[in-house]
Amino acid sequence: MRLVQFHRHGDEGGIRVGVEQDSGLGVVDLKAFDSSMPSTVRELLELGDKGLECAQRALASGQCMVQRSDIQLLSPVLAPEKVVCVGMNYRDHCLEQNAPIPKEPNIFSKFPSAITGPYADITLPSESQEVDWEVELAFVIGRRGKHIKEEDALSYVAGFTVANDVSARDWQMTRNGKQWLLGKTFDSFCPLGPALVTTNAVKDPHNLNIRCLVNGETVQSSNTDQMIFKTAALVAWVSKFVTLTPGDVFLTGTPPGVGVFRKPPVFLKKGDVVECQIDQLGSIINKVV
Amino acid sequence: MRLVQFHRHGDEGGIRVGVEQDSGLGVVDLKAFDSSMPSTVRELLELGDKGLECAQRALASGQCMVQRSDIQLLSPVLAPEKVVCVGMNYRDHCLEQNAPIPKEPNIFSKFPSAITGPYADITLPSESQEVDWEVELAFVIGRRGKHIKEEDALSYVAGFTVANDVSARDWQMTRNGKQWLLGKTFDSFCPLGPALVTTNAVKDPHNLNIRCLVNGETVQSSNTDQMIFKTAALVAWVSKFVTLTPGDVFLTGTPPGVGVFRKPPVFLKKGDVVECQIDQLGSIINKVV
Repeated sequence: MRLVQFHRHGDEGGIRVGVEQDSGLGVVDLKAFDSSMPSTVRELLELGDKGLECAQRALASGQCMVQRSDIQLLSPVLAPEKVVCVGMNYRDHCLEQNAPIPKEPNIFSKFPSAITGPYADITLPSESQEVDWEVELAFVIGRRGKHIKEEDALSYVAGFTVANDVSARDWQMTRNGKQWLLGKTFDSFCPLGPALVTTNAVKDPHNLNIRCLVNGETVQSSNTDQMIFKTAALVAWVSKFVTLTPGDVFLTGTPPGVGVFRKPPVFLKKGDVVECQIDQLGSIINKVV
Repeated sequence: MRLVQFHRHGDEGGIRVGVEQDSGLGVVDLKAFDSSMPSTVRELLELGDKGLECAQRALASGQCMVQRSDIQLLSPVLAPEKVVCVGMNYRDHCLEQNAPIPKEPNIFSKFPSAITGPYADITLPSESQEVDWEVELAFVIGRRGKHIKEEDALSYVAGFTVANDVSARDWQMTRNGKQWLLGKTFDSFCPLGPALVTTNAVKDPHNLNIRCLVNGETVQSSNTDQMIFKTAALVAWVSKFVTLTPGDVFLTGTPPGVGVFRKPPVFLKKGDVVECQIDQLGSIINKVV
């Protein structure tokens, strides 16, 4: 199942939960199908199986359909409690920078205010001259847990989506006492979407081609089989520190080909268009303004 | 005005907003006074002046009073979008570790899941052997803003409270690629309270004695006049990166006397009681379990 959040054109305030048809042309408006259903995916996940079963029924009904052309897709999750990010998590990305393969996940974060829609603009801040792209597999937590065992971890994952971990390298690497947060969390630095693809609908999340294109040119191209710490390991690791809760978003690291390690380095400029694609999940396309 | 969040004993699920009487013995239940008022301080702040004016009327009415002995105080803010933290922000704390006075604020974060109540327990995680205390002045954002000028910044601050920026030094300083997040964000590592003291009720937030006591012994004792980047400067700085929103919590750094820089170092152990006090704001007391 492909869960989305959207608003109708001309109704900017009203977030709705939708379920995409297989064709991708229509979206079932969940609250129109069942008015007891919530208006956000986070609240839907908090309902557990009951919410997902209702979404299934809505999709099967073929009722309450809105056309893709009448709506704007938003990030499939807004206002999560946490955006957990993982650094240095692709073998080929470590090789690119002659860095050792990490023995433990390297965890940092973005504020939820960085999240933006799958086709929304990335705003270049005047404070940075070195804004870079990073396509990443993202996943979303579906139920609450702490000290989750790796063998149980996938049952805590609601689904997968595509992220761009936009990064201001000057702020990340040399300023702010080398704490990455500020360089990673400018407003609009976390495009996400287009849909939350539920775990049962993804054949193998660790065998997906993953690509980033800038102005149509492929700059990153790898496979999620290169991930050092995979989904279950990351859930288990982070839940040793914090209670995970429905809606929490994980960004799982980026493959090689980022701008900062090119010779000479390349950074985003106004007018660029960045497209991040992952097999089975879809693609997000964000213009830099 | 002193805004609190509480639940009645035996009603663990029900968060309520309260306004403390001057005596500290009674709390006005805001929603009982006006059922149109929200159940959380964050939502109250989102109402702007309207919400605070209602809280004033409730306090003046003397009605809908609950006794302190009948309720449990919670953190005055729960589930903020951001917990923004500042490192190395006291002159005397920099001297303590022979560190240069920073030229820019050093910003990191905790996840909101770390927040706990003013008298709740701090849970010592088995993953750390080096859990330390840090008394800090905290403030809470009252209205939405981006690129806020320093001269306007105080009008974006709803009020002040007391925080303990509990820190696992092993995870902060040597593991996780030296990104501080994990060491700072274990569950219960952000006791907060007892009240959100509105800005108009604090004479000068940068001339307050600030102390931490462990098992009754004073371990930190300084004054908020030692802060390098003060409230207005921090609001202006962080709002260059991110949109601030009502309920966002800032922890503004700690004075000298933390355990890790003692010779030999001292860390918290089960059964310890940590009390953090700031003049005019009050004190939070947390047992280590």
